[in-house]
Amino acid sequence: MFREKIKVLDCTVRDGGLINNHDFDHRFVRAVYKAIAESGVDYMEIGYKNSKKLFSPKDYGTWKFCDDEDIKKVKEGIESKTKISVMVDVDRVDIEDVKPRKDSPVDMIRVATYVKDIDKAIFLVNHFAEKGYETTVNIMAISKALDNELNEALHQLEEESKARVVYIVDSYGALYQETVEFLIKKAKQILKTKEVGMHAHNNQQLAFGNTIEAIIHDANYVDGTIYGLGRAAGNCPLELLLGFLKNPKFDIRPILDVISKEFIPLREKIEWGYIIPYAITGILDEHPRAAMALRGSDKKENYREFYESLIGQDQA
Amino acid sequence: MFREKIKVLDCTVRDGGLINNHDFDHRFVRAVYKAIAESGVDYMEIGYKNSKKLFSPKDYGTWKFCDDEDIKKVKEGIESKTKISVMVDVDRVDIEDVKPRKDSPVDMIRVATYVKDIDKAIFLVNHFAEKGYETTVNIMAISKALDNELNEALHQLEEESKARVVYIVDSYGALYQETVEFLIKKAKQILKTKEVGMHAHNNQQLAFGNTIEAIIHDANYVDGTIYGLGRAAGNCPLELLLGFLKNPKFDIRPILDVISKEFIPLREKIEWGYIIPYAITGILDEHPRAAMALRGSDKKENYREFYESLIGQDQA
Repeated sequence: MFREKIKVLDCTVRDGGLINNHDFDHRFVRAVYKAIAESGVDYMEIGYKNSKKLFSPKDYGTWKFCDDEDIKKVKEGIESKTKISVMVDVDRVDIEDVKPRKDSPVDMIRVATYVKDIDKAIFLVNHFAEKGYETTVNIMAISKALDNELNEALHQLEEESKARVVYIVDSYGALYQETVEFLIKKAKQILKTKEVGMHAHNNQQLAFGNTIEAIIHDANYVDGTIYGLGRAAGNCPLELLLGFLKNPKFDIRPILDVISKEFIPLREKIEWGYIIPYAITGILDEHPRAAMALRGSDKKENYREFYESLIGQDQA
Repeated sequence: MFREKIKVLDCTVRDGGLINNHDFDHRFVRAVYKAIAESGVDYMEIGYKNSKKLFSPKDYGTWKFCDDEDIKKVKEGIESKTKISVMVDVDRVDIEDVKPRKDSPVDMIRVATYVKDIDKAIFLVNHFAEKGYETTVNIMAISKALDNELNEALHQLEEESKARVVYIVDSYGALYQETVEFLIKKAKQILKTKEVGMHAHNNQQLAFGNTIEAIIHDANYVDGTIYGLGRAAGNCPLELLLGFLKNPKFDIRPILDVISKEFIPLREKIEWGYIIPYAITGILDEHPRAAMALRGSDKKENYREFYESLIGQDQA
């Protein structure tokens, strides 16, 4: 029996954009949108809303900025119930760039934040809620959050924010399911008026398992990406999530189709997935940036040396 | 804090041999054995013991038969506490081929069986136990086992068999962690005098997560393979398992080394891992043979058509 409250968000283009400076062409993004729409997935996150004062459009692709006109071009002529989401980072968005929802092709805005920036995140999320958007706050790098600070942040989110959903984000792919259980239960207990979500990274091949674990403990918002596309090891594969969920509104077939046609060729051009240096940063609960640098070097397969460099680098 | 009773078995060469007719050369198998020995892994399973009356050595590689002389050549000159295991299948082994343990380089024999063949498995396992071996019974395709038949088999194993360990084998990579919990708890409850083990396949990227789930519910024998090598989608990656387990006797570094040197080049020659047709057979709880055939055909990337062929093939 399925749980109707579970909402699936596809963030293929948004998280995948972290590999290629958000430079997917419109044809590809339309192919993804069409597949997502046909599969019955609830939301598609299409990119970030970054300030052009901070980042030059010369250096980044379309989906670093998500101008309304670009989103409209993607949606044009495709009938769909799938809602559009964009993500904003604390300190990187110009709120004047965001029109009221009634004038925008965007339905939901997700605010990504570290625990330390929770006050800024609450300011942003309340601002967007007042403009009429569905909103979430996504707490990144949660595997590094201290328990007392996380507790305070969750209480603030419950009491001060208009966010509808608060996500646990395992940015480093470091969590095992016992800690997922601990965090989701904690969030559910404090966030009495909100939904809880899960965004997992796949460094240790646990993104799907941890997402199931979150669902078991009553998270109702879950993220996936087609063929796991996403920075470094990538995310929870959407096709597996749809295979697991029993809601008859979902159809895996359009996703299988777009993997064959778009993602198998794409994987020849850009790299993501289960690659040992990303597994190592996951095991060590570290940001994947050192592993990403290694993969761009001529030592890309020197795993032991990479591991030893990480465990030897700090003397506390 | 670690659980000392947890024993790790590497079955890289045995399960990987299902991809290439068990035809790994001695140099490769020695490199694996050396890495396993240095990493502190408890057991290495090196292949199957099959009757040469049933299978011709002309058609298969060394590790389909595991002659004592071949095992001795692999071990020669390498100091190690790692024990050697071989697997036998019901109806495919000639028990006269197996010498008493004191005259053999093998320490453990694992009997693989379906629930329906449990009487034959008990005969075999008791025979090998009497010859002095450590023994296990591995119940394959458990995702297809009917509950009443599985209960009866587990009771028989507890009451009639000398097996020290009984493994739950998710041959099709179809289990989600709720069912792993159900099966491990059931096995622990019935098998009061034995240990319980977990052997997982990775069709849905759940082999590692399901192995953790089994450990949480007190399975003490867990299988892994280096870089997840194994038939079709492969197995629980040993490097992730060692990263998770806290017993200081384990060292991940020799495994990282052998992946760089042996498994990255091997992956160019033979195929295993997260590949959509294997994900599909996992989701549908089917043997991967149709997916393996597809991967050998010119329709290897036609995922939607493959999915539709599987869901459309039976009219009940």
